[in-house]
Amino acid sequence: METILRYKREDLIDFVVRYMSKIGVSPEDAAIVGDVLVSADMRGVESHGLIRLASYYGSRIQKGFIDPKTPWKVIHETPSTALIDGGNGCGQVVGKRAMEMCIAKAKTAGLAAVSVKHSNHYGIAGYYSMMALEHDMIGMSFTNSQPLVAPTYGKTAVLGTNPISLAAPTNKAHPYVLDMATSAVAYGKIQLHEKMKENIPIGWGVDEDGQPTTDPTKIKPGGHGALLPLGGMEVTAGYKGYGLAVLVEIFCSALSGGCFLSQVGSPAKPDPTCVSHFFMAINIESFRPIFDFRNQMDDMIALLKRSPLAVGRDEIMVAGEPEFEYAKFNLEHGVPLHKPIVDDLIADGEKIGVQFDLVPVTVNHWSLGIRHEAPGTRHEEF
Amino acid sequence: METILRYKREDLIDFVVRYMSKIGVSPEDAAIVGDVLVSADMRGVESHGLIRLASYYGSRIQKGFIDPKTPWKVIHETPSTALIDGGNGCGQVVGKRAMEMCIAKAKTAGLAAVSVKHSNHYGIAGYYSMMALEHDMIGMSFTNSQPLVAPTYGKTAVLGTNPISLAAPTNKAHPYVLDMATSAVAYGKIQLHEKMKENIPIGWGVDEDGQPTTDPTKIKPGGHGALLPLGGMEVTAGYKGYGLAVLVEIFCSALSGGCFLSQVGSPAKPDPTCVSHFFMAINIESFRPIFDFRNQMDDMIALLKRSPLAVGRDEIMVAGEPEFEYAKFNLEHGVPLHKPIVDDLIADGEKIGVQFDLVPVTVNHWSLGIRHEAPGTRHEEF
Repeated sequence: METILRYKREDLIDFVVRYMSKIGVSPEDAAIVGDVLVSADMRGVESHGLIRLASYYGSRIQKGFIDPKTPWKVIHETPSTALIDGGNGCGQVVGKRAMEMCIAKAKTAGLAAVSVKHSNHYGIAGYYSMMALEHDMIGMSFTNSQPLVAPTYGKTAVLGTNPISLAAPTNKAHPYVLDMATSAVAYGKIQLHEKMKENIPIGWGVDEDGQPTTDPTKIKPGGHGALLPLGGMEVTAGYKGYGLAVLVEIFCSALSGGCFLSQVGSPAKPDPTCVSHFFMAINIESFRPIFDFRNQMDDMIALLKRSPLAVGRDEIMVAGEPEFEYAKFNLEHGVPLHKPIVDDLIADGEKIGVQFDLVPVTVNHWSLGIRHEAPGTRHEEF
Repeated sequence: METILRYKREDLIDFVVRYMSKIGVSPEDAAIVGDVLVSADMRGVESHGLIRLASYYGSRIQKGFIDPKTPWKVIHETPSTALIDGGNGCGQVVGKRAMEMCIAKAKTAGLAAVSVKHSNHYGIAGYYSMMALEHDMIGMSFTNSQPLVAPTYGKTAVLGTNPISLAAPTNKAHPYVLDMATSAVAYGKIQLHEKMKENIPIGWGVDEDGQPTTDPTKIKPGGHGALLPLGGMEVTAGYKGYGLAVLVEIFCSALSGGCFLSQVGSPAKPDPTCVSHFFMAINIESFRPIFDFRNQMDDMIALLKRSPLAVGRDEIMVAGEPEFEYAKFNLEHGVPLHKPIVDDLIADGEKIGVQFDLVPVTVNHWSLGIRHEAPGTRHEEF
């Protein structure tokens, strides 16, 4: 049996603001961190949500591995580009400011890009790409991350799960929001199978010899074995996922002069992580009227969704659709948190004298197991 | 036994110029078509090389499905963007002109993008992204293409194999050139297995019910079955490849107002194909000194290549490396063409009164089978 408590979105953000303010983050910056983290739980990407508040952020700020003041600065700037030093601050704060800059530049320049070095884990990549939507722009957001993935024909984790996010506005359909790790799966999925003592499919990871394995215990990046890039082994084109992971590195770290590949640290280790990000905004009106673009997006999505179904399947989805449905449900019914996460938030708050005294909207009980919650929970992690 | 004839690069391009000029293409445009096609054979992407000269281009021009004059025009333009109507002309000509425009704009604007509608198959995507390299820029090139791929949970081909290409300059290493279909594999690979009566791995395609299959005869996009997106079935994250294919559509067709998904025609059918493309150039000096960027690319590639090898493997490669090695070999020893392709070129030339009278540099004989030619042949197709 597991218990899920649902809270009001604003209450959770308010807790993050109180928590982060207490350890030196300005209330304004803390509100950004809270919004990004709670958005992850809202959208069903719980691995990037409040579960990380202390482990990825709070405890690391207290230990001096992240600068709570986030002293980011622009190193170089043109009307359409910027290179930012994140000042080893909160990735969410740098990320939001960088994407705001991108959007402002794209308004006059047509399109704009910002590359960021010396930052930290910024949460869900989709948060930043989606910022472009209300400005009638296409948004993109990439980040490198701690080594978890082996290159094709390798056996050691040297690449991050380096996610790619793209958001594009629509008219009536949900916006198209792709937010995907370039690894075959999130490490969290492998850990979950290990916990449940279930085998994993071929294509998720390799063992210490670089051979495909169905045993989740053989995949411990940093120790032995590694995740595989999207596509899996060479025969199913894993070199393409590997190629995309390097594409992300080029935009994030080679353009910014930031740390790359195994230079990027893990939030579990006692050092700054030195993460690099990349953001882009494309002003659609620089190409054609936004109204026409939005309608064509709707037409394209409709054509995909009415494509003939495979036997045994109910619906064809497009990227972002399950997350929007899930977020809508959670906005109405409360943002779900598993009880152990709530217990951690209570304990982490107590440590610094901040009370997690929120009243849940509802409390649900579920039987335990690997399952797909309706609608649309996923367990992505990078 | 199969026979491979090797020809001088310039001789092959000259033949294409004579062939295309004879059917109404200007010599200048014909030289572009020739360079793009021969570059594919040079780089080992033979499915996009001279094998397509008549079937994708020549015969379609003669039948009126492609306009040999390529009357492309700029519909809308800003200092950093352009929307081009390809005039149903040769995709290679429109592609090259669009990328040239992109590069010229990026020189002053920092970065630039061009979206193209109403074009035709443009050959290898990497040709255009690589044009950015000598300008100290990152180049990108996407195109949509005829439906061959089913969306996740679908069973019918509605998506093209929509390739993504990115090229980034280096110092001493080969430039990084990713040129990948967003499908798990090229349709040509499945056809090759059918010809050799060999099974295919799970993850390449689905049968008429949308179920995974190892039988290549069950995958005939347009008839029954379909290719799968990169990642394969849902359990190995095929929805990510599906998401990337739609990303390509957004840049190519939604930004340009061009045809999308199943609106895109096949070169095998008696109609214009209405293909859409997208190009981007990013001026690296807008972010940081090109010298620093190039050196960091070298460092990153070196780090990947010296990563520990899986048992049984000889070398970790990076994207573009095998193609550069192969092209170097072919520049020295002649561009290889299989004898049946040479026979077709002779016959296609005769039909319009153009002689394929080239003298091969060498003639090699091989035993027949599915094999990996050294160094680096691949058989990609989209």
